[in-house]
Amino acid sequence: PSNLPGYATHQVGVAGAVLDEDTGKVLVVQDRNKTINAWKFPGGLSDQGEDIGVTAVREVLEETGIHSEFKSLLSIRQQHNHPGAFGKSDLYIVCRLKPLSYKINFCPQECLKCEWMDLQELAYCSNTTPITSRIARLLLYGYKEGFHHIDLTMRTFPAVYSGLFYSLYHKRLPETYNRNNNLI
Amino acid sequence: PSNLPGYATHQVGVAGAVLDEDTGKVLVVQDRNKTINAWKFPGGLSDQGEDIGVTAVREVLEETGIHSEFKSLLSIRQQHNHPGAFGKSDLYIVCRLKPLSYKINFCPQECLKCEWMDLQELAYCSNTTPITSRIARLLLYGYKEGFHHIDLTMRTFPAVYSGLFYSLYHKRLPETYNRNNNLI
Repeated sequence: PSNLPGYATHQVGVAGAVLDEDTGKVLVVQDRNKTINAWKFPGGLSDQGEDIGVTAVREVLEETGIHSEFKSLLSIRQQHNHPGAFGKSDLYIVCRLKPLSYKINFCPQECLKCEWMDLQELAYCSNTTPITSRIARLLLYGYKEGFHHIDLTMRTFPAVYSGLFYSLYHKRLPETYNRNNNLI
Repeated sequence: PSNLPGYATHQVGVAGAVLDEDTGKVLVVQDRNKTINAWKFPGGLSDQGEDIGVTAVREVLEETGIHSEFKSLLSIRQQHNHPGAFGKSDLYIVCRLKPLSYKINFCPQECLKCEWMDLQELAYCSNTTPITSRIARLLLYGYKEGFHHIDLTMRTFPAVYSGLFYSLYHKRLPETYNRNNNLI
């Protein structure tokens, strides 16, 4: 094993699945510069030092004009030799967001179209990417049967050595497991 | 929004929580070069182009001599200004692994100690890191009540534009949501 310090091997992108729970509609875009006009969730690359949920909210706002808040992390995608990443790998994270505004004002440099689409329609339509379709089905499962089935929630922890803080994402832990005893 | 191509902002590390389901014991190490001798899961940095589960299995083998196989992804940790990452950010992913061998032969350059520890003990002992403790409790929850409560499973998808493949991790989707119709 090498004792060399680490180096950055991945770019990190974040997409936001903004679901309006009152109407069952989700915010989708079509990219301007792609040959296939597939519906997908708005998103983009993290800036240096930016938390995952912050990237999701910022990218959604920049692309669509919709204000939103972070609810959970839903999925992680890894791809190697990512096009446009200088031979590096790509981690793309999809977050569940809640809308705080509804009036679309999309960025014409980035998007060809933007709309609120029925989640069930997105989950089973053909003009979308395989991953968007998959995440839409996951989101539909959570919407119908409870988001606790699909959500990774976030908690902040102090790092032992550095004095910095970590953000940790995982399935919610029942309170019985989170007491400082072993009487389970 | 910038039209510049992306660049690598994160190093990616992976830890392996190797649980022997027959005995309820989990594989833990103490790092050699740290001032606090806290029990933690073995792990280390991904090599360029290496899948998350492959890193976990490789690092566990290098540090402890234990052979294992990937079962699921459990948790993601993000930290900015990570020490030893040249000011970059760090994503650390914890995987659930299943042991394929049991005889420890740990790397003395990396580890001070290595042992199979009762999972319940790790979950509630004090000489561990906050995150190891948290993940041990999550793993205990899965061990007692079913791993479907905590696992993110992996599936591979074709990328639309590049012809490459993605690995996608999320909570398991019930089969009823995964058929190509909307009769739910």
